[in-house]
Amino acid sequence: MKIVIIGTGNVGSHLAGAFVKAGASLLQLFNRDKNKIKTMASSLDAEAIDDYQKLRKDADVYILAVNDGAIEDVAPKVAAVTGPEILAVHTSGATPSKVLEPHFYRFGVFYPLQTFSRNQETDFSAIPFCIYADRQKDEVLLKQLAARLSTNVYLVSDEQREVLHVAAVFINNFTNHLAGIGKQIAENENMPFELLLPLLEETVAKLKKLSPEEVQTGPAIRADQATIERHLNFLVKYPEYREIYSLLSKSINKKIDL
Amino acid sequence: MKIVIIGTGNVGSHLAGAFVKAGASLLQLFNRDKNKIKTMASSLDAEAIDDYQKLRKDADVYILAVNDGAIEDVAPKVAAVTGPEILAVHTSGATPSKVLEPHFYRFGVFYPLQTFSRNQETDFSAIPFCIYADRQKDEVLLKQLAARLSTNVYLVSDEQREVLHVAAVFINNFTNHLAGIGKQIAENENMPFELLLPLLEETVAKLKKLSPEEVQTGPAIRADQATIERHLNFLVKYPEYREIYSLLSKSINKKIDL
Repeated sequence: MKIVIIGTGNVGSHLAGAFVKAGASLLQLFNRDKNKIKTMASSLDAEAIDDYQKLRKDADVYILAVNDGAIEDVAPKVAAVTGPEILAVHTSGATPSKVLEPHFYRFGVFYPLQTFSRNQETDFSAIPFCIYADRQKDEVLLKQLAARLSTNVYLVSDEQREVLHVAAVFINNFTNHLAGIGKQIAENENMPFELLLPLLEETVAKLKKLSPEEVQTGPAIRADQATIERHLNFLVKYPEYREIYSLLSKSINKKIDL
Repeated sequence: MKIVIIGTGNVGSHLAGAFVKAGASLLQLFNRDKNKIKTMASSLDAEAIDDYQKLRKDADVYILAVNDGAIEDVAPKVAAVTGPEILAVHTSGATPSKVLEPHFYRFGVFYPLQTFSRNQETDFSAIPFCIYADRQKDEVLLKQLAARLSTNVYLVSDEQREVLHVAAVFINNFTNHLAGIGKQIAENENMPFELLLPLLEETVAKLKKLSPEEVQTGPAIRADQATIERHLNFLVKYPEYREIYSLLSKSINKKIDL
């Protein structure tokens, strides 16, 4: 399996490393400034390029791992060199596959449902890959490619991927923000965030075995008005967090009287 | 160290097991119906009792591991038998230590900051214990007791414990609820929650190394109005979750124009 990756941000660079580890052949890595990726590319036995004209035409798949907003810019530049016959996929959770259709006969999506960090190696084996291709034959190819990296490969339509992306905002972006609020509240009273980390870890550990409804605890689910009132009183000095506390408590238990 | 535990709910029964494992001597376990705890008590080499009159008077500490609302009921019943000279502590995050003051000369708090589940063994070694005692000598004793179970022992005042409890609501109760929302949204479109679990795990794994502000991602922090609009459109069929999405997105980035 011969691969070209365009874009070496968090997703592109992690994928590149994982593919090579899994024995795939990474032909080229594209970055606007090839000097920035020379070391990475040579360690992966790939060619670093920053000129679309240098794109090879013989890869089995071209992965556009660029920002959501850049996909529609990059696609025609690739197609102008390779022609429309190649298989081009993007890695975005939020972008319909259709944005590739004007430029390529064969197009799809190769979306790893995970949050990546620079400078931190990623174990892909448990990461769910959400695959879509316009043509069934290409879907088979993308499935095989994903299966090299992970045991969790799903065929997901554009509509389903959009829904997953909304769910992911709740599960990653919003929970992270709530952790930040808890951290700030604790630290403002001179207590370290570390005190709260084991609780956060156990919250997630439980969800691997039981459903969120089964393990919901706290004053809201008990409709413990006295505790809720005390908490709201404390939160008067954090009006923004107080509003979040109210709304989420009501969402947990509609019987609460705020 | 001789211990009596009153109450064998999630906290009481987990503490009982952990103390014995750590070599402390558990004299008695109190439950309203001693038949229900006979097996547990005998496995811990403790006496099962359901009559306050049977309480021994020679323990070093009496742990009232009962519901928040029951502490003020149970305290006078214990004191009537033991006298006010014993060291009595409760295990509640939300209850001031002062509720014990009318009944005991020596009182305090022994609060493990964690969420416990029945039928699931708990590893106490990393659980933060929040200790408070009215008298310094008792504080030393409680610290030693907690240090048998955990390496994370903190002296925490009533006021600080109240703040921690608010933070814990954000970090445990609310994040669990958000996970439930993500689950429901995904499952309503026939996608399994398992697809989202690795993302949730990684969200927490990152927070062990970096602060929430450093790892915040998603459309809100990028002020990506186009994606936010699409998500809000999708959420029209979930008005309650739509409101939560709006409020949290605005809280993440006040520059968002909703």
